[in-house]
Amino acid sequence: MSKSLSYASEKAGFPPGSLVHVGEVHPHEHSISVINYNKSTFKRQVVKSIAEILPYQTDDTVTWVIIDSLKEVSVIEAIGQYFDIHALVLEDILNTHQRPKFEEFNGYLYIVLKAIALEDENFNVEYEQISLLLLKNVVFTFKEKPDAIFDGILNRLDNEKSHLRELGADYLGYIIMDTVVDEYFALQDTFDDLIELIEDELLAHPTAQTLTRIQKLKRELIFLRRSVSPLRELLVAIQRSESDLIDNRTKRYFADVYDHAIRINESLESYRDLIAGMLDIYLSSVSNKMNETMKVLTIFASIFIPLTFIAGVYGMNFEYMPELKWRWAYPALWVVFIGTSAILLNFFKKKKWLE
Amino acid sequence: MSKSLSYASEKAGFPPGSLVHVGEVHPHEHSISVINYNKSTFKRQVVKSIAEILPYQTDDTVTWVIIDSLKEVSVIEAIGQYFDIHALVLEDILNTHQRPKFEEFNGYLYIVLKAIALEDENFNVEYEQISLLLLKNVVFTFKEKPDAIFDGILNRLDNEKSHLRELGADYLGYIIMDTVVDEYFALQDTFDDLIELIEDELLAHPTAQTLTRIQKLKRELIFLRRSVSPLRELLVAIQRSESDLIDNRTKRYFADVYDHAIRINESLESYRDLIAGMLDIYLSSVSNKMNETMKVLTIFASIFIPLTFIAGVYGMNFEYMPELKWRWAYPALWVVFIGTSAILLNFFKKKKWLE
Amino acid sequence: MSKSLSYASEKAGFPPGSLVHVGEVHPHEHSISVINYNKSTFKRQVVKSIAEILPYQTDDTVTWVIIDSLKEVSVIEAIGQYFDIHALVLEDILNTHQRPKFEEFNGYLYIVLKAIALEDENFNVEYEQISLLLLKNVVFTFKEKPDAIFDGILNRLDNEKSHLRELGADYLGYIIMDTVVDEYFALQDTFDDLIELIEDELLAHPTAQTLTRIQKLKRELIFLRRSVSPLRELLVAIQRSESDLIDNRTKRYFADVYDHAIRINESLESYRDLIAGMLDIYLSSVSNKMNETMKVLTIFASIFIPLTFIAGVYGMNFEYMPELKWRWAYPALWVVFIGTSAILLNFFKKKKWLE
Amino acid sequence: MSKSLSYASEKAGFPPGSLVHVGEVHPHEHSISVINYNKSTFKRQVVKSIAEILPYQTDDTVTWVIIDSLKEVSVIEAIGQYFDIHALVLEDILNTHQRPKFEEFNGYLYIVLKAIALEDENFNVEYEQISLLLLKNVVFTFKEKPDAIFDGILNRLDNEKSHLRELGADYLGYIIMDTVVDEYFALQDTFDDLIELIEDELLAHPTAQTLTRIQKLKRELIFLRRSVSPLRELLVAIQRSESDLIDNRTKRYFADVYDHAIRINESLESYRDLIAGMLDIYLSSVSNKMNETMKVLTIFASIFIPLTFIAGVYGMNFEYMPELKWRWAYPALWVVFIGTSAILLNFFKKKKWLE
Amino acid sequence: MSKSLSYASEKAGFPPGSLVHVGEVHPHEHSISVINYNKSTFKRQVVKSIAEILPYQTDDTVTWVIIDSLKEVSVIEAIGQYFDIHALVLEDILNTHQRPKFEEFNGYLYIVLKAIALEDENFNVEYEQISLLLLKNVVFTFKEKPDAIFDGILNRLDNEKSHLRELGADYLGYIIMDTVVDEYFALQDTFDDLIELIEDELLAHPTAQTLTRIQKLKRELIFLRRSVSPLRELLVAIQRSESDLIDNRTKRYFADVYDHAIRINESLESYRDLIAGMLDIYLSSVSNKMNETMKVLTIFASIFIPLTFIAGVYGMNFEYMPELKWRWAYPALWVVFIGTSAILLNFFKKKKWLE
Repeated sequence: MSKSLSYASEKAGFPPGSLVHVGEVHPHEHSISVINYNKSTFKRQVVKSIAEILPYQTDDTVTWVIIDSLKEVSVIEAIGQYFDIHALVLEDILNTHQRPKFEEFNGYLYIVLKAIALEDENFNVEYEQISLLLLKNVVFTFKEKPDAIFDGILNRLDNEKSHLRELGADYLGYIIMDTVVDEYFALQDTFDDLIELIEDELLAHPTAQTLTRIQKLKRELIFLRRSVSPLRELLVAIQRSESDLIDNRTKRYFADVYDHAIRINESLESYRDLIAGMLDIYLSSVSNKMNETMKVLTIFASIFIPLTFIAGVYGMNFEYMPELKWRWAYPALWVVFIGTSAILLNFFKKKKWLE
Repeated sequence: MSKSLSYASEKAGFPPGSLVHVGEVHPHEHSISVINYNKSTFKRQVVKSIAEILPYQTDDTVTWVIIDSLKEVSVIEAIGQYFDIHALVLEDILNTHQRPKFEEFNGYLYIVLKAIALEDENFNVEYEQISLLLLKNVVFTFKEKPDAIFDGILNRLDNEKSHLRELGADYLGYIIMDTVVDEYFALQDTFDDLIELIEDELLAHPTAQTLTRIQKLKRELIFLRRSVSPLRELLVAIQRSESDLIDNRTKRYFADVYDHAIRINESLESYRDLIAGMLDIYLSSVSNKMNETMKVLTIFASIFIPLTFIAGVYGMNFEYMPELKWRWAYPALWVVFIGTSAILLNFFKKKKWLE
Repeated sequence: MSKSLSYASEKAGFPPGSLVHVGEVHPHEHSISVINYNKSTFKRQVVKSIAEILPYQTDDTVTWVIIDSLKEVSVIEAIGQYFDIHALVLEDILNTHQRPKFEEFNGYLYIVLKAIALEDENFNVEYEQISLLLLKNVVFTFKEKPDAIFDGILNRLDNEKSHLRELGADYLGYIIMDTVVDEYFALQDTFDDLIELIEDELLAHPTAQTLTRIQKLKRELIFLRRSVSPLRELLVAIQRSESDLIDNRTKRYFADVYDHAIRINESLESYRDLIAGMLDIYLSSVSNKMNETMKVLTIFASIFIPLTFIAGVYGMNFEYMPELKWRWAYPALWVVFIGTSAILLNFFKKKKWLE
Repeated sequence: MSKSLSYASEKAGFPPGSLVHVGEVHPHEHSISVINYNKSTFKRQVVKSIAEILPYQTDDTVTWVIIDSLKEVSVIEAIGQYFDIHALVLEDILNTHQRPKFEEFNGYLYIVLKAIALEDENFNVEYEQISLLLLKNVVFTFKEKPDAIFDGILNRLDNEKSHLRELGADYLGYIIMDTVVDEYFALQDTFDDLIELIEDELLAHPTAQTLTRIQKLKRELIFLRRSVSPLRELLVAIQRSESDLIDNRTKRYFADVYDHAIRINESLESYRDLIAGMLDIYLSSVSNKMNETMKVLTIFASIFIPLTFIAGVYGMNFEYMPELKWRWAYPALWVVFIGTSAILLNFFKKKKWLE
Repeated sequence: MSKSLSYASEKAGFPPGSLVHVGEVHPHEHSISVINYNKSTFKRQVVKSIAEILPYQTDDTVTWVIIDSLKEVSVIEAIGQYFDIHALVLEDILNTHQRPKFEEFNGYLYIVLKAIALEDENFNVEYEQISLLLLKNVVFTFKEKPDAIFDGILNRLDNEKSHLRELGADYLGYIIMDTVVDEYFALQDTFDDLIELIEDELLAHPTAQTLTRIQKLKRELIFLRRSVSPLRELLVAIQRSESDLIDNRTKRYFADVYDHAIRINESLESYRDLIAGMLDIYLSSVSNKMNETMKVLTIFASIFIPLTFIAGVYGMNFEYMPELKWRWAYPALWVVFIGTSAILLNFFKKKKWLE
C-alpha cells in the first residue's frame, strides 16, 4: 500500500528528460494490443513494435493502443518519436508516482489516472497508474501490468450494435475514465461495510487490535484521497479545454464523470469524520473499561479491609479483653461482619457500581 | 440511514447511458399523476402512459407530471424520447445516489433534490431523491415512492383563488423546492430537542449509551450535510442562469430559498460544534467518575490499613510484650483507633474528597 | 437563548408569501412611533395606522417610523401596500429567525440585523431581530419588543445642534446600524471578564460545574457567531451597492461599521481558541487530581502493607519460632517498623510525591 | 496584556464622530515634535500647538510630526481642521482598539499599526497603537506614549550622508513601518527561546505550572496574531494603491515589508502547531506519571498481600494444625515468603515495570 | 534544525538596504567559480574578483557563477554595482532567513530556494538557502557553504553530448531548481521509513521516548512545510512571468517542477495526518497500559484480601469458637481458600482480564 508513496526519489540524480522506469516493477510480460474500429469494422491484434501501428492512423477509424507494462522503455521512446510526444510526457508515463493530471499539448492530450483494485479481504488497496494519450483518432493507454480492467470496454467494442463504435476517440477517452472512476464506487462500498463492522466492534468489545484497524483505515483513506481529489481539478480542466480533440457533445459526458468524482470526494470526507469519531469512542471505551476494573477493586477492598481489621482486633493478645470471654461474642461478630458487608454493598448499589 | 451511501457501485459495469434503476427499491405501486392548470382551470388525473400527456403541452396551461416510483424504466425512457431529454439525465433520474444539482440543457432544466422525513422517535432520517425536469409549461417530478410531500401544493392548486394558479411552470418549480427545503426546518427542530436532551443526560448521568447516541447523531449530521450543502451552489446556479425558462421575477423567490438553505447550513455547522463539545464533556465525565471511584477506595484503604497494622502488632506472640499485660491497654488502643480514623477523615475532608 | 434556533419550522406548511408572525411572541403592546425631522424641525408622535404616515412623505424631511412589535400583521401588510414592498420582504420581517442580510429592491433597501442585550448576571444573551426598510426620506424599523435601544438616537435627534439632523435617511440608517453593532462591544467586555473568571477557577479549583460553564459559554459563542459573521458580507454589499438611496459620502461611514464588525468577528475567533484551550486545561486538571488521589493511596498502602505482613509473621503460632523468646525482639521489631517506614517515605519524597 | 481587548465598549453610547480618547490612559506628558529635513537641512524642535507646523508645509522639505500621547484631544482636532482630515479618521486615531489597516483619502493616506515591546522576563507583551497620516511632504505619527521606538530613524535623519534624507515622505512612511515590523522579529526570537524552554521542561519534569505557561503562551499568541495577520492585507492594499502620494519605486520597498509580514505570520502559524503538540505531550506525561504511581502500588500490594495471607493462615488458632508442630516449619515458611517475592518480582521485571 | 528560525531579528536595527550577512555563519572558505559554456566550449575556473567575470558576458555563451559562501559582503556588493541589482535583492541574498520566492526585475530575475540535506541517522535536516540571479546569458547562484549539490549538473555540462549545453540560461535555471526539488523526494523516502518505524514501535512497545520522536518529527515537518509550500506559488509566478528571460518552451519544464512541488506538498499533508493519528495511538496505548497495571492489582487484591480476612477470623482469640476444636476444620478451610480463589479467577477469566 505504502508503495505508491515510497521510493519517490528513485530517479533523483538522473537528468530530467531521461527515460527510466520509476516505480514498482511488476513481473509481467510486456504486450502491445491494437484495437482498430469504426461503425462497421472491429479488429484486435497484438503487435511487436510501434512501427506496426502507423498504418492504422487513417481518418475513418479509431485506433486504441494498450501498452500493458512499462518495462520496455524503448516502446515508449518509439511512440515519442513517431507521434512527436514531449520528452517530459514520456518521462511522466514511465514514472508511476504521478498524481492524476491533465495536460494539453499541440496535437495531443495527456491524462494520468490512478486505477484502484481491492486485493483481498485484508483491505489492501492496489493502485495502478493509467496514462492516456489522446491524439486525433488514436488513443494510447499505458498500464503498469496486464489486468482485466478494460475487458468490459473491449466486449462492448466487439458488439456491432454498440453506441460506442459510432463515436470518436474522445468518447473512447471518456469511457476509459468512466471505467476507472467506477472502480472507486466499488471501493466505497467496501469502506462502508468495513466502517460498520469496526463501529460494531467498538461498541461491543474494543481491543488494541481495533485501534490498529482504525489506523490502517485512516492511512488507506489518506492515500486514497491523494488519488481521488485531483480528479476534480482534472475534469474541470478537460471541460474548459478548447482543444478540438474533444467534441463539445462529449464534454457533457465528462461533466458526468466530474459529478462522480465529487460524490466520491464527499464520501471520503464523510469517512474522515466518521473515523475521527471512532477514535473518540475508542478512547472513551478504554477509559470506561478502566473504570470497571477500578470498581471491582474498590468493592472488594472496601468490604474486606474493614472486616479484616475487626478480625485483627480480636486476634490481639491483651490480657484484659473482656469481649473474648463473652459467650455470644463470636456469633455476634459474624452478625457484624455480614451487616457491614450488606451496608457497603448497598452503598455501592446506590452508586450504580454493581450493574 | 446509511443506505443512501451503500451500494453506490451497483451500476458499475453497465455501460454509461444504460437505463437501470440504481438504489433502494421501494415496494410501492408505480403511478403517473398529471395536473393541468391555469388561472381558470384545474384538472388532475392518473394516466397509464406518457403518450397521454402529450396533448397537454399547450401554451396556456401548466402541466405537472408526478411519477411516483422509479421501477418502471420504460416510463423514463418514453419521457426521454417524447421530450428529447439527454441520456445522462435519464440515467441520473434513475440513480438515487445523486447529490443535489442543477443542470441547464437546451429546452429544459434538470434539478435533483433530496427530500427528508423523520421516520420515528429513534431519529431515523429517511431520504428521498426528487428529480425535477422543468420544460416550457411542463414540470416533471420523479419520486422514489408515493408520499404526502406534495399534498400541500396540490391543495393550493385546487383552490381557485390561489396566487399559484396565475403563475408559470418556473413558479411551480420554486414552490416544489421551497416545500422540500422547509422539511429541513422541521428536522432542525428535532435536532435541537435531541441535542438538549443528550446534553442534559451528559451532565446528569452519562453512560456508554449516551456515547452511542452522540455518535449516531454525528453520523446523521454527516449524511445530512451531504444533502444540504450542495443546495447553496445549486441555488446560486439557478439565480445566475440565463435560461428563458425562469422568469426574472421568479428568481427573487429562488433567492429566498437560497436564504433558507444558508440558514440550514449554518445550523448544521452549529450542531457540529455542539456535538464536538459533547464528546469533550463525555470524556471529562468518565474521568471524573473514575476519580470518584478512586477516592472511595483510597479513603477506605488509607483508614483501615494502618489500623489493621496496629491490631496485627498486638496479635504478635512475643513473650516480652509489656503492653499486653497493662490493664487499660485494650481500651486505650480503641482510643488510638478512633483517633487515627478521625485525623484521616479530617485530612480527606480538607481535600474535599468527602463531598 | 436557544430560542433563536428552535421552532424554525413553525411556518413550514404555510404557502410562501403568507404573512404570519414566526418566532417568540413578546407580551408587549404594539405601537407605531413616527419621528419627522430636518435641520429646523423635529416632531415625534404615536400613530394608530399606517395611513397617518403618508402625509410625511415630503421631500425636505426625514421620516423615521418605529414599529415596536410584530404582533399586528395588518400593520406590516398596510406598509406593504402603501409603499409597494415585495411580499417576501414582508414575510421576512415577520419571521424573526432571519440571519442578518442586505437586499436591494427597486425604490427601497431591506436590512436585517440582530440586536443583542445581556439580560442578567447568568450571562443570558437576549437576541432581538431589527429590520430596516430604507426608502427615499423614509426609514422603517421593525422591532420585536419595545426597549431603550434607540433612545440615544432619539435624544440626539431632539437636539437642534446635532449633526444628524442635517443629514439624510441613509445617515439615519448608518446611525441605527452603528448603535446595534456597538452593543456587541459591550457584550465583548462581559465575555472577557467571564473568560478570565473561568480561567482563574480552572487553575485554582476546577469542578464539574466549571465544565458546565465552559460549555454554556461555548454554546453562547456559537449562537453569537451566527449573528455577527454575516455582518461582514452585509456591509460589503452595502458599500458596493449602486443604489442612489445611499450617498457616496455615507458609504465611508458604513466602512467604519464594517471595521467594527471585523474587530468583533476577530474577538469571537479568539474566544473560540481560548475556550478550546480551557477544555484542555480542564481535562489535564482532572487527570492531575486523579493522580493526587492515587499517590495518597499508594503511599498509605505501600508503607503499611509490608509492616502488616511482618506483624502477621510474628502472630503465627509455630512451636519453634526462636525470635518469640528473645528479650529484645519486640522493641527491635519496632525499630524495623519505623526504619522501613522512613526508607519508604524517603523513596516517595525523592519521587516528589509528598509535595 | 488582555487590555488591548478589554473595555472595547468604552465609547459605546457616544455619537459616532465625537472625539474621545478610548483605550488605556498612559500617565505621560503630551508632546509634539516636529522634524523638518531635506538633503541639505535637518531641524528638530518641540512645538506647543499645531498652528506652528503650518509654515513647514513647503514643497522642498519633508516634515515629520510626532505626537507622543493621545490625551490632548484638542491637538487631534486642530490637525483635523488645518489638514482637512475626515472625522472618522480622527476618531480612529483616538481609539487605540483599532486593528492594523490602510485607508486612502483624497489628499492623504491613513495607516494604523500595532507596535510591540517585550516588557520583562515574564513575557508580557506591550502593545502600542501607532497611527500614520501620510500627506504630501508631511507625515504625522500618533503614539500612545513617549518611547524610544523611533530613535533609530531620528539618528539616521540627523546624519547628513543618510540615503533617507534624499527621499520623500513616502519613504519615511516605509521606514516607520519597517521599524515597527522589525520589532516582531525580536519577539519571534523570544518566542523561540520560550518554546524550547517549555519543551525541555515538558520532557523532564512537567508540572501544573507548565500547563499554565503553555496556556499563557497560547493566549499571547492569539493576541499577537490579531496584530500581525492584518498586515498582509494592509501591505497588499498599499502596493495596489494608485495614490500619487506613494512613488512606484517606494512600492518595491513596501513589498519587502510585505515579505517580512508573511514570514512573521508563518512563524506564528508554526508556533500554533508547536503549542498544540505541547498540550498533547503534557496530557501524555500526566497519564504516564499516573501509570508510574499505579505500578508502585501494584508491586507493593501484589507482593505483600499474598504473604500476609500466608502469615495469617499460621496465625489461626485451630487445635489440629499439624504444621505448627513441625520442627522446620517456620524457617521453611521464610523460604516460601522469599521465593514467592522473587517469583513476583521476576514477573514484574518481565513486564518492564521495574525500570 | 531550529536555527533556520532563530535569531531572525539579528539585523533589526540596521537601516534597510545595509548589506550585512544575517544567518548562521559557516566556517568555510569563500570561493567564486565561473562556468562558461555553449554547445562547443566548456570552461570552468575559480576567480578572485567579480571584475574577472565581466568579459564572459558575451552573447553566445552561458556563464554560470557559483558563489560558495556569503561571508564576503564585498563580492555581493560588487555584483550589485556591475550588474545593476536592486539594493533590497542584495540584502535578501545575504539574509538566509528568506522564504522561497520569485521576483521579477528589469533585466534580471531573482529566485530564492531552500535546499535540504539529511545530515545523519538522527534525522537532522540541514537547510541551505540558495539564491539565483537569472540575467541574460548569466546565472548567479549564491550558496551558504560549499557542498556537492551542483556536482551532477557540472558533470553533465562537462559532457559534450549533453542536451543542456545547447540550451540557454533559463534552462540552466530550471535544472538548478529541479536539482534542489529532487532532494525533497529523498527526504520524503526517509520520512516514509521513519514513520513506518515509529508506527511499529507504537504498536509493539511505546515508551515516553516514542513520544519525543513523534514530536521531533512533527517539528521537522512544520519547518519543512515552510520551505516547501511557497514553491507552489513561486512556480506559478514563473510560469505566468512575461519576462523575455524565460523562453516559452522552458516554461513547460518549470511546469514539471511545479508538479513535483505539488506532489511533495501533498505528501507533507499526508504525514501531518499520519502523525496526528500516531499521537492518538500513543495516548490510547498509555491508557491501555494503565488498565493492564490496574488489572494485575485488582486480581491480586481481590483474591487475597477475602482470604486474609478468613484467616484473620480464625486467628481471633475468643474462648467460645467451636470451629477451632473441630478435627477437619483446618483442611476444610484450605478447601474454602482454594475454592474461593478458583471462583474469583473464573470471574476474572470471564471478564477477559487474564489474557
